[in-house]
Amino acid sequence: MAGTNSDLELIAEGPAIILVEPQLGENIGMVARAMANFGLAELRLVNPRDGWPSEKARAAASKADHVIDATKVYETLEDAVRDLNFVYATTARERYGFKPVRAPVTATETLRAKFKAGERTGIMFGRERWGLTNEEVALADEIVTFPVNPAFASLNIAQAVLLMSYEWMKSGMEDLAETAFQSVQQRPSTKEQVFGLFDQIEEALDARGYFHPAEKKPKMVDNLRAVLSRRGFTEQEISVFRGVIKSLDAFPRRWPKRTEKSAEGEGTPTNGSGDND
Amino acid sequence: MAGTNSDLELIAEGPAIILVEPQLGENIGMVARAMANFGLAELRLVNPRDGWPSEKARAAASKADHVIDATKVYETLEDAVRDLNFVYATTARERYGFKPVRAPVTATETLRAKFKAGERTGIMFGRERWGLTNEEVALADEIVTFPVNPAFASLNIAQAVLLMSYEWMKSGMEDLAETAFQSVQQRPSTKEQVFGLFDQIEEALDARGYFHPAEKKPKMVDNLRAVLSRRGFTEQEISVFRGVIKSLDAFPRRWPKRTEKSAEGEGTPTNGSGDND
Repeated sequence: MAGTNSDLELIAEGPAIILVEPQLGENIGMVARAMANFGLAELRLVNPRDGWPSEKARAAASKADHVIDATKVYETLEDAVRDLNFVYATTARERYGFKPVRAPVTATETLRAKFKAGERTGIMFGRERWGLTNEEVALADEIVTFPVNPAFASLNIAQAVLLMSYEWMKSGMEDLAETAFQSVQQRPSTKEQVFGLFDQIEEALDARGYFHPAEKKPKMVDNLRAVLSRRGFTEQEISVFRGVIKSLDAFPRRWPKRTEKSAEGEGTPTNGSGDND
Repeated sequence: MAGTNSDLELIAEGPAIILVEPQLGENIGMVARAMANFGLAELRLVNPRDGWPSEKARAAASKADHVIDATKVYETLEDAVRDLNFVYATTARERYGFKPVRAPVTATETLRAKFKAGERTGIMFGRERWGLTNEEVALADEIVTFPVNPAFASLNIAQAVLLMSYEWMKSGMEDLAETAFQSVQQRPSTKEQVFGLFDQIEEALDARGYFHPAEKKPKMVDNLRAVLSRRGFTEQEISVFRGVIKSLDAFPRRWPKRTEKSAEGEGTPTNGSGDND
């Protein structure tokens, strides 16, 4: 899925990602990569089991070196959040407490609003095997949890960071339907162009006795036109169709027919014509 | 992040996930796990490099055995999509074509609508290193692409499947702010309860000569009340506060003061009281 363009500005802002006692360097690297994909850059580690720096983390980060290089290590979670104004704790298990529980969409909207107001924020993620302790969750302002399949909930730490980072990126988009690139723009056809296609096809078919018996011709033409206009073809599509018809109409076959497919296009166009009677 | 509850119904429906020539069994397993997390269950492999079944895939799937066991293998992409009505191709790179390009949110809304209408749908994902060929993309109805950091776009196949699966799950939720569990519900306090807190604190402070000089008392009381009412404390919170005040008011210290923190709470409550003059 690589589509990096290094000429483009690197987005690196937003909440700090705080990993509490992460064990595997590979997971830390995957976290850094997920963050970089969605414009986050500040990684904080509380007491990583295998120490820091970690070559395994750097390898798994797939060139998210700006995140790895800036990673800070803390001895306690308190130290890791001391300078922040607002912190989320992520958790999959139900917690019996009074803290507000948010969906990722809601949490990242809150984080985005605080970011715009100049507040410093963070998102805490627990250990690979058993998450955060209740005492650690208590240090957060609110809880965020993921809408997973209740009978199969096994997000790992890198996946959880990926989802929060993705929602963070989306929270900054004015239009959620926005995409980084669009299909090539095509001009819609005019009715004049559609009528030109009708005329060409109908004339070519008529010359072959297609509209038979004669009394059914008006109905058959209606059906055919319904099929040809239902999709709102663009100018370019009309042009492609007209070229195809012209070739079929004007030239004889140069090679023998393939045996696999039999004469398509024969018979009436009644099937699938969109006609409702 | 494990929070699986195997007493709950396993969600297993929705679009097929189609991996074109996946190389590593680990990646296939991570894909199965991501699918299972968000209720998808139908995995199709086109020509997996290391064959199928794969023990590495099963291990990486973290018990998403229902997905692994039901995985089907096809020789060509055409075979893998033959029975489907509507297919998305995922791609990170810009494609110069006429196919509509959608964001994940839009694509999963479309897939959900088609699912409800009884159509069979799928989402194609390309090879780890270089994605889908243009010919493969041409077999899809529409393209879906992710809103990634333009200068760092390196989603791997399992991450891409995770995001689409997550958006699929969300597309079936009536309320995106919904969470699997909520904080314990608390009753909002009545004004009567808030006034009781005011009275108790003010009386206890007055008894210590806190409101000094006397002419400033009304202003100091205003500030104090502003602080105590700004957050809209609940009944339980008021009750906790009153217990704290009662204890401080009624009992002498039993142990010597810690030296680290000096006498907090002394002086006027003017700072941070929310008073604007």
